[in-house]
Amino acid sequence: MKIIIIGASGTLGRPVTRALQQDHEVITAGSKSGDLQLNITSPASIQGFFEKVKSFDALISTTGHGHFGPLNTMTDTDFRKGIDNKLMGQVNLVLIGQHFISAGGSFTLTSGIVSDDPVLLTANLSAVNGALNSFVKAAAIELKNGVRINVVSPNVVEDSPDFFPYFPGHTPVTMESVKQAYLKSVLGGQTGQTIKVH
Amino acid sequence: MKIIIIGASGTLGRPVTRALQQDHEVITAGSKSGDLQLNITSPASIQGFFEKVKSFDALISTTGHGHFGPLNTMTDTDFRKGIDNKLMGQVNLVLIGQHFISAGGSFTLTSGIVSDDPVLLTANLSAVNGALNSFVKAAAIELKNGVRINVVSPNVVEDSPDFFPYFPGHTPVTMESVKQAYLKSVLGGQTGQTIKVH
Repeated sequence: MKIIIIGASGTLGRPVTRALQQDHEVITAGSKSGDLQLNITSPASIQGFFEKVKSFDALISTTGHGHFGPLNTMTDTDFRKGIDNKLMGQVNLVLIGQHFISAGGSFTLTSGIVSDDPVLLTANLSAVNGALNSFVKAAAIELKNGVRINVVSPNVVEDSPDFFPYFPGHTPVTMESVKQAYLKSVLGGQTGQTIKVH
Repeated sequence: MKIIIIGASGTLGRPVTRALQQDHEVITAGSKSGDLQLNITSPASIQGFFEKVKSFDALISTTGHGHFGPLNTMTDTDFRKGIDNKLMGQVNLVLIGQHFISAGGSFTLTSGIVSDDPVLLTANLSAVNGALNSFVKAAAIELKNGVRINVVSPNVVEDSPDFFPYFPGHTPVTMESVKQAYLKSVLGGQTGQTIKVH
């Protein structure tokens, strides 16, 4: 398969890229690194990216960030950081990418545990992740030609100790289990699923 | 209690308003009707609205719309209709309203069934509703002074027969049950809940 990995140089993207490179043609992409660059906050940049790639069998997005901060000082501008980047960035990869993906292909996006089990400071990311989980459920029933879509929702990962203090009571999950969730989506047959690693 | 109802003239807002007016001081609001007008897509309009109201005990939002249309022609611009209106409109009512609400007050927002059980044409509204359900869960653990927040997620309502053809296999719910969900949020004690009427 020809597999695009957006965010391939990130904490989640690296092990997923290594695993898939063994048997597949992987195109790595990111804002500043990888085989191709794109700005996920720009529909024009995404369109140009897919025009270069032409067609593909699977797209994995392990990218996107939001606003991490207290509710009592949060503003519209703060909240739109996650909306414009992690949410609309990934949604637009699908809205535009659906016109380039091969029959039977798949999209795999990334959300995160705080939509279901929020911690302090995550009002924005909880909303963004909840939106992504519901988006794939709805998009799955409309994508044509057997194209599938899922989202991986990881808990805090063992490789990101800087986040541990913000997740009291959470047991960090292994990178191996998160990597396997992406492989399940790409190499499996399910669609419309939130693949929880928590 | 002093209760604000945004969208008071709408299908859901009218019965909720009638029920609460019996025992409470209700301030009705909408884009064009009601005691006060506001534009929920403008943080400045929302700020001005709360400055007029000064303080309140409960806010109910039964307002907000999104894009209803096929995924295969959906664009960033289409998708942002629901983001800017139903999602950010209601999020900003909370982000700004938290600085005006009385101790022990409550916010009650409106999402809808398609976040959990989408029908065709609802990729945008599913995402918006999923975002709202997760937002209240996260906001609930940060709101100060005992302020609560919930969201009502109705199925298609018996009073909206125009929507029935878009919801095959769904049994429309009674307006009475939807009205009661809003009363449960405002007059009850729970917080962070998605009150499902489906």
